[in-house]
Amino acid sequence: MPPNPADLVAQALTGNRLALARLLTLVESQTDSAIEALNLIFPATGNAHRVGITGAPGTGKSSLTNKLAQTVRRRGETAAILAVDPSSPFTGGAILGDRIRMRECAGDPGVFIRSMASRGALGGLSLTTNAAAEVLDGVGFDWILVETVGTGQAEVEIASLAHTVIVVEAPGLGDEIQAIKAGILEIADLILVNKADQPGALRTESALMAAFHAAERPAYRHHSDIDQSGIIPPTSKDGWSIPILRTNAIDGEGVDAVLARVLEHRTFLQESGQWQAKETQRMQHAFEQSLRHALYTAWHDALPGDAYDDLLRQLNNRAISPQQLARQTVQAWLTGSKSESNRHIS
Amino acid sequence: MPPNPADLVAQALTGNRLALARLLTLVESQTDSAIEALNLIFPATGNAHRVGITGAPGTGKSSLTNKLAQTVRRRGETAAILAVDPSSPFTGGAILGDRIRMRECAGDPGVFIRSMASRGALGGLSLTTNAAAEVLDGVGFDWILVETVGTGQAEVEIASLAHTVIVVEAPGLGDEIQAIKAGILEIADLILVNKADQPGALRTESALMAAFHAAERPAYRHHSDIDQSGIIPPTSKDGWSIPILRTNAIDGEGVDAVLARVLEHRTFLQESGQWQAKETQRMQHAFEQSLRHALYTAWHDALPGDAYDDLLRQLNNRAISPQQLARQTVQAWLTGSKSESNRHIS
Repeated sequence: MPPNPADLVAQALTGNRLALARLLTLVESQTDSAIEALNLIFPATGNAHRVGITGAPGTGKSSLTNKLAQTVRRRGETAAILAVDPSSPFTGGAILGDRIRMRECAGDPGVFIRSMASRGALGGLSLTTNAAAEVLDGVGFDWILVETVGTGQAEVEIASLAHTVIVVEAPGLGDEIQAIKAGILEIADLILVNKADQPGALRTESALMAAFHAAERPAYRHHSDIDQSGIIPPTSKDGWSIPILRTNAIDGEGVDAVLARVLEHRTFLQESGQWQAKETQRMQHAFEQSLRHALYTAWHDALPGDAYDDLLRQLNNRAISPQQLARQTVQAWLTGSKSESNRHIS
Repeated sequence: MPPNPADLVAQALTGNRLALARLLTLVESQTDSAIEALNLIFPATGNAHRVGITGAPGTGKSSLTNKLAQTVRRRGETAAILAVDPSSPFTGGAILGDRIRMRECAGDPGVFIRSMASRGALGGLSLTTNAAAEVLDGVGFDWILVETVGTGQAEVEIASLAHTVIVVEAPGLGDEIQAIKAGILEIADLILVNKADQPGALRTESALMAAFHAAERPAYRHHSDIDQSGIIPPTSKDGWSIPILRTNAIDGEGVDAVLARVLEHRTFLQESGQWQAKETQRMQHAFEQSLRHALYTAWHDALPGDAYDDLLRQLNNRAISPQQLARQTVQAWLTGSKSESNRHIS
């Protein structure tokens, strides 16, 4: 029997972790029950600080995320980690990071960890990740750390659901190209040069500075506790000076400084009114995604049994282009009988 | 004045490159004129071999793509290169690769180059890339080389529109993690270890073999002209033995062998019936994408002037969850007056 959304939400709100896990599975399903659950938890949301952590494979994102969660815990606050792996659409799952993570954070009830694989579904990543973040926000986690592999679409989606985006770079990963190509200039609020003890860290940093300079959006170089060489006049992203920090996440070096900057960013967002603007944008994004999904589902559910096969047959015969067939199909559906379509979408 | 789709298609079919460029811009626009143009060119499509070339930044994809185009030219065949950069959603454009490419291929009328930036649009990458590939196929290019940066969603989308997917790896990019995380095992038909003269190439190859082995999908190691150490029994992806080849694209080493394998793959696909199956899948994918787009557009176009602002206001007041609002909005629209919705979607 499928779980009752109202019961699951009520239990999860009391701190029941098993209920929370089941609730997360439910909201990932994008069913009517999922929408009901999200609607029930919605009034309790809006309090968590959502931090997106992104970077290429091998930069040490997972270690950084773990250490950030531990730093948050020392402040007496709670953290949920959402590890999203958009690069494994078919098999699903962040294989490597998880075991390390479990070992480091196991046994602490103030840290909750959830891995998600986006299965190549259109809009699947942000739709389900945002739903999961809503639930974790609603049940009272102070921080939601959304970690995702990325050079690509995933990063943009992270930017749409996080208040603060941390981009993690590391030496020796084809730095110059990465910095320019990954589109990070547009989404980063903080940039970390992780593995700062490794050869090439300075070159990575220089490449980042150069990339920012080329984009006419200079960053504020902040060397945390390591050194203070070079003075770059701080400029801004909507008024925020993007710090570049050195870290060594594997032993936690520099992570306190990262959290301090994230807290500064929170204050900045709140005082400038951008926190509220981001909330609006995020809800709008979720609305648009859900709307697209609901439109498709309504169309698909209203299809008679063998109608889809008929459509495929027309394509196979190359009788009509896919685009024209789509247009005709939508027009025919929308002009079709009201009662026919309504019977299926309630 | 906007260009007439029928005129543009007619001119592009005669080999007019300016008309082709304008036609590509038109089909990227996803307007009614774009659909008309795609419908006009559709009967001429279905002849090109579409090759997807993907890999992390810094692996040398662009050089490989250029050299592959030149190799194809020496066979007396034509090639169109579609360079898709999904990682640059806001600013758009593959900055680095383009200048090199232009220098190497300029002046050859048998090579056509087009750069595309997917601007973070939902489903934008495959929708517009497929439309562009359709046009290039229709005007008679023998090969369409679709090059994309990727560890992520983009790779899956490439797999949906290519007959043959080449995954390019290179030493020193965090090999083990990349091989496992990037989901390449599912989409690769050929794997190249590019920059094979650099230190670590053998380690990259070993990591790839290990990753395949772990996934219980062993690859066929084919060292082309370099060496033949180690014998791995060839096994398969739907009956195809995935070769791992060493290349050094910057001076063209190994690229002839790559093309030979791609041609073998074509024969394999045709003889096994998978070529036709891929064509069907591709058209179905394009249909689904276009359908989603048409549904959203129909809804959006039918909205009265300030209705969208009203929806946003409800979200801002946190009066209703985004998911519930989307569901209600779709239901209200579908039960709304037929004439109202039809007036806007024709």
